[in-house]
Amino acid sequence: LTSRLPKVGTTVFTRMSQLAAESGAVNLGQGFPDFACEPALVDLVTEAMRGGHNQYPMMTGVPALRAAIVAKIAAIYGHQYDANTEITVTAGATEALTTAILCCVHPCDEVIVIEPAYDSYLPAIALAGGVPVLVQMTVDADGYRVPWDQVAAAVTPRTRLIIVNTPHNPTGSVLRAADLQALADIVRGTNMLILSDEVYEHMVYDGQRHESMCRYPELAARSFVVSSFGKTYHVTGWKVGYVAAPAALSAEFRKVHQYNVFSVNTPMQHGLAGYMADPAPYQQLPAFYQRKRDLFRDGLRGSRFELLPADGTYFQCVRYERISSLPEALFAEWLTSEVKVAAIPVSAFYQRSQESGIVRFCFAKKEETLALALQRLTSL
Amino acid sequence: LTSRLPKVGTTVFTRMSQLAAESGAVNLGQGFPDFACEPALVDLVTEAMRGGHNQYPMMTGVPALRAAIVAKIAAIYGHQYDANTEITVTAGATEALTTAILCCVHPCDEVIVIEPAYDSYLPAIALAGGVPVLVQMTVDADGYRVPWDQVAAAVTPRTRLIIVNTPHNPTGSVLRAADLQALADIVRGTNMLILSDEVYEHMVYDGQRHESMCRYPELAARSFVVSSFGKTYHVTGWKVGYVAAPAALSAEFRKVHQYNVFSVNTPMQHGLAGYMADPAPYQQLPAFYQRKRDLFRDGLRGSRFELLPADGTYFQCVRYERISSLPEALFAEWLTSEVKVAAIPVSAFYQRSQESGIVRFCFAKKEETLALALQRLTSL
Ligand SMILES: CSCCC(=O)C(=O)O
Ligand SMILES: CSCCC(=O)C(=O)O
Repeated sequence: LTSRLPKVGTTVFTRMSQLAAESGAVNLGQGFPDFACEPALVDLVTEAMRGGHNQYPMMTGVPALRAAIVAKIAAIYGHQYDANTEITVTAGATEALTTAILCCVHPCDEVIVIEPAYDSYLPAIALAGGVPVLVQMTVDADGYRVPWDQVAAAVTPRTRLIIVNTPHNPTGSVLRAADLQALADIVRGTNMLILSDEVYEHMVYDGQRHESMCRYPELAARSFVVSSFGKTYHVTGWKVGYVAAPAALSAEFRKVHQYNVFSVNTPMQHGLAGYMADPAPYQQLPAFYQRKRDLFRDGLRGSRFELLPADGTYFQCVRYERISSLPEALFAEWLTSEVKVAAIPVSAFYQRSQESGIVRFCFAKKEETLALALQRLTSL
Repeated sequence: LTSRLPKVGTTVFTRMSQLAAESGAVNLGQGFPDFACEPALVDLVTEAMRGGHNQYPMMTGVPALRAAIVAKIAAIYGHQYDANTEITVTAGATEALTTAILCCVHPCDEVIVIEPAYDSYLPAIALAGGVPVLVQMTVDADGYRVPWDQVAAAVTPRTRLIIVNTPHNPTGSVLRAADLQALADIVRGTNMLILSDEVYEHMVYDGQRHESMCRYPELAARSFVVSSFGKTYHVTGWKVGYVAAPAALSAEFRKVHQYNVFSVNTPMQHGLAGYMADPAPYQQLPAFYQRKRDLFRDGLRGSRFELLPADGTYFQCVRYERISSLPEALFAEWLTSEVKVAAIPVSAFYQRSQESGIVRFCFAKKEETLALALQRLTSL
């Protein structure tokens, strides 16, 4: 059997979580909360199951959930999507990303990917037969930025899609209005589509605003915007996300979605629809996570790690050059097995592993988890 | 935007369910039960959620569920899979089918598809860049059979995969030991893989046995065997299925799965794992559904429909030539909107619509639902 994905191994997240478990390490590697979701959300799902919502939902998603998504986007970003034709509920954001790529990338189409990049983008492009064109973010004391001049230079007549991600995993950087302006200048007059991975949309700190594609009609008109209930509501294992896209793009998305997974867990969708009636949980999320971020950053200031900016996501990137000269993957393994704190090497987010001496910690953890990790990290 | 799936519209199941709802028809179209699942199963899922099982499960599936699947297959079919390397839990059987196709079919590889065929196979092959090679089942008074001589004639050096489905949707036919022998003769000495859609494995009637690929080591060694908890436990909306395949095939399957959906709903997996400890629910399923089948068949004997054999699945196919000469799609629409009983035209399961004057009814319904449908159908 010749592999369709010869370059692919087990994801770095799975490997580091395994090593963390084997080592008895505090797991700040794979991004997931170690605290419970709201019991009210669980109750709503239970109610849906007991109420008999256990058969196929609509392929596009439960209408009440699609309506709630439309209302949320309108309230925050001022863009009015049509719930019937422009919103599709997906089996997590990963399915949304892969399905979006499969529905619009034809063999030999070029896709611009900005590295470091979430690890599902390139395999999905490979499955579609597309050609990734890689552009690297720059990194300095001010953190990671997208070099838009290099992105512009990467565009060719074959460019079909550009993938952007804000707030950005793994770097914790966020795009600013000027970045979206630069992106708009690049795509204007082309046939390029945008796949915008915004799963951390509700985790932007210090009073900054999330620059969703939805805020800019010119960009929204050619974008698949992806989000994740797992990230927002602390239920990464529920695997429910969505894609918002203009009707013509959604129509193509749905063709693939309906034959990829057909539809998404019914009772979870009903529970989430009910839970979304109250905007408080996502409105409070920035403050909730900023507190954890600050606690973690403050703790690390007493260590030999150097903090990079962390404007969004629940990730904190750090330089470790004052501690070790190991390459990132080995340093992360050493940190996990010897120091008992798991991290993710940022090099894992590059096709050709690039060494910057930076690893990523996830701070979506209970305060006592963060305290224990800090105790170990500051001892170095 | 040029479509990756230009031939694809909304599935016949979605369209007929919509028409049924609009018409106030009894919905015997799309295959799903109209009765509740076991409350004990719902309780187990609730327990899992309250117990904090809401974050990412292992990419391959919750270990307890994989162990339960292995035990079930060993008990019924006598084949011992390795839970760590050979079982992957999927986002429903649809994801399993599409992921299996994407992981082994390279552009220009040929895939033998036996028609009538479940409607997700061909779009998945198209996404993979594969070339479908279609063979039609024969149909006579004894029902639908696979013409293995024609299958053998369809094999070429480029044949990578053959998709088989037993018990068969939409025809309700089942493969017999002799069929699997014929299949074994065809694949022996080739590089062909088998994708075996066995989602109705526990719905085989009249004391016949389900001929799973797992019963035959020679076939199991090259098969992806797909099943569905939604069908078996009356929870089609939970979207949990699995694929069992030898380690080398599972490794390729998992590469695509991990970037397609990454993993599957955690609390549902825990609930199902607990529920599977008792084999009674699936052991009792044949008797449970045979009773419904018999009730439905007996009722239709007083009508002008002609019954085809229904050896497995929860579907009953009927000829309607004594009632109408409409093509199947129009007859199904008329039946839905005028007679108020929705059915699925078997022609929808062919790439080039083939007219046999046969429609499919789903009898996975409460007795009163079947009684109401029968009252309407016998009035014709
Ligand atoms: C799908 S597992 C990875 C979780 C995640 O988004 C991350 O850690 O970056
Ligand atoms: C995924 S909706 C279709 C359900 C089904 O399997 C059928 O009706 O054949």
